[in-house]
Amino acid sequence: MTIEEISALDLDPERFIAEQVDAISSAVGDGLAINALSGGVDSSAVTMLGHRALGERLKTYFVDNGLMREGEGERTVGPFRELGVHVELVEAQDRFLDALEGITDPEEKREAITRTFYAEVFRDLVRESSARYLLQGTILTDVDETVAGIKRQHNVLEQLGIDPEEAFGYQIIEPLIQLRKDGVRKVAEALGLPASVSNRMPFPGPALSARVIGEATRERIALVRQATAITETELADTPSFQYMAILHEDRVTGMRDGRREFGLQIEVRCWDSVDARTATPTRLPWDVLQKLSDRIVTEVPGVVSVTYNIATKPPSAMEVV
Amino acid sequence: MTIEEISALDLDPERFIAEQVDAISSAVGDGLAINALSGGVDSSAVTMLGHRALGERLKTYFVDNGLMREGEGERTVGPFRELGVHVELVEAQDRFLDALEGITDPEEKREAITRTFYAEVFRDLVRESSARYLLQGTILTDVDETVAGIKRQHNVLEQLGIDPEEAFGYQIIEPLIQLRKDGVRKVAEALGLPASVSNRMPFPGPALSARVIGEATRERIALVRQATAITETELADTPSFQYMAILHEDRVTGMRDGRREFGLQIEVRCWDSVDARTATPTRLPWDVLQKLSDRIVTEVPGVVSVTYNIATKPPSAMEVV
Repeated sequence: MTIEEISALDLDPERFIAEQVDAISSAVGDGLAINALSGGVDSSAVTMLGHRALGERLKTYFVDNGLMREGEGERTVGPFRELGVHVELVEAQDRFLDALEGITDPEEKREAITRTFYAEVFRDLVRESSARYLLQGTILTDVDETVAGIKRQHNVLEQLGIDPEEAFGYQIIEPLIQLRKDGVRKVAEALGLPASVSNRMPFPGPALSARVIGEATRERIALVRQATAITETELADTPSFQYMAILHEDRVTGMRDGRREFGLQIEVRCWDSVDARTATPTRLPWDVLQKLSDRIVTEVPGVVSVTYNIATKPPSAMEVV
Repeated sequence: MTIEEISALDLDPERFIAEQVDAISSAVGDGLAINALSGGVDSSAVTMLGHRALGERLKTYFVDNGLMREGEGERTVGPFRELGVHVELVEAQDRFLDALEGITDPEEKREAITRTFYAEVFRDLVRESSARYLLQGTILTDVDETVAGIKRQHNVLEQLGIDPEEAFGYQIIEPLIQLRKDGVRKVAEALGLPASVSNRMPFPGPALSARVIGEATRERIALVRQATAITETELADTPSFQYMAILHEDRVTGMRDGRREFGLQIEVRCWDSVDARTATPTRLPWDVLQKLSDRIVTEVPGVVSVTYNIATKPPSAMEVV
């Protein structure tokens, strides 16, 4: 099946919304649908489209996987409460963190999170709700990157060897599959979502586990969560495409109270980019970098060293693992 | 025994040189002395003092431990050849690299190098030469830092449980023990050593093995040697106190030819400092950082990411391990 792209330039957001709301209504009929809201612009737009089409017959879940940033739950659910859309919070921290125990390989970490999400947590929600339709925020770039072997985001269930209809008895609906990110942002805006959602900085599916090199233990996730909060506060005013803090596994020498101490290192990345295909490090003011580093070594326990990424993509990637 | 400090301000280099040359002559009499030249300003000044006092009765060795920077042997021996001082090159690469095999702990790495140097390579040279006196470039800061437990540079033989007189039958002479680095630089200059020696940037005793996090294999030393050469070329014009390239053990995601690749990361540090007790990162021009990063990812095999240290000392240390 070929997917016909709708470029952001050609997109009429109101017409697109009306068509997708109709399509969801016809497909689901008087049944139930469910979807998972991550807080990203794709799943947020899908939530609004599904809500317009189905009202209370769409069950939207926000799964707290224990890998979220500080305040992420409220930051995600709040805007929907304002718009009269109910989002149910699912507390699943231990299921994910237990699944990550002992895993250091980046691919295996990603696999453990995907499997826990789809084959455990979300499967249970589908069964409980007896929904027959699943709304997903897949966009055209996800399809491209899956085909190219870069990402494994599209049709994750099939990649795990699971046929969703056979296994769970549900069908997948992907209302955004003809759009790219810039188109989705226009649709999100037209759906009444605030700029904090429609222009949200990209954040990876595996969340903070992608910001930890090596094992994503509870302790290490807590440390990178603190460094992330500091980084996002200090860089909030920069117009960069994306910024992040990464906890390294390597130990480096530090000095505390005149004594040698092998401590932790945080790497900060801040990218200038148009479409994430290529990217260059933002030339941040040195005063900003110094304050950022000072806060991280002072506030995050055990951190004695902070670096700033100066390589371009390619050959770097934007995320570290 | 209390050591009386001679500050750089109070130092009369010519008088100091005359006194130390006399002291070495009287101590050694018509015997033989040996010393090891590393290329640093301390051992270079000691070599010149010993040469003035003893002429051919001082045997000076440059030990190539396989952990040297590109061109380090010639850069070290060349200025002495110009001054008519013979330095004997000792090829001991395999002895050090074999001793480092399988060691990842920074303290154990340092210990393996010290032990190989003193208890093996240098012991053999002492025995062959039948010298009874060893000239060492210990300075007052080394003594301070050893007392404070920060370094283990002073009287390394005793720290290894070796009494040099009993074990090897030789005595240690330390002509620079009353000076600090700035005093040594003045003495080195007065001894006719070129600025490339008297103002040489500090470089650690364990050499490039201190610039590799984790095991210092032949392959990893070769990679950090390349990154070091690029860094020293690109930053040659900066008036910074010290700059360096460090090979991390952590693997990070890169992209080559549109495909994901887990590659290597190089960290660059460039310090502004007066006395190495405290230090801040040099605010290098962004064009310099970008060219440095571009060269490293292009020329050093497998490197996909480069960072620049932005933390101060303390709580960072200047060297990474």
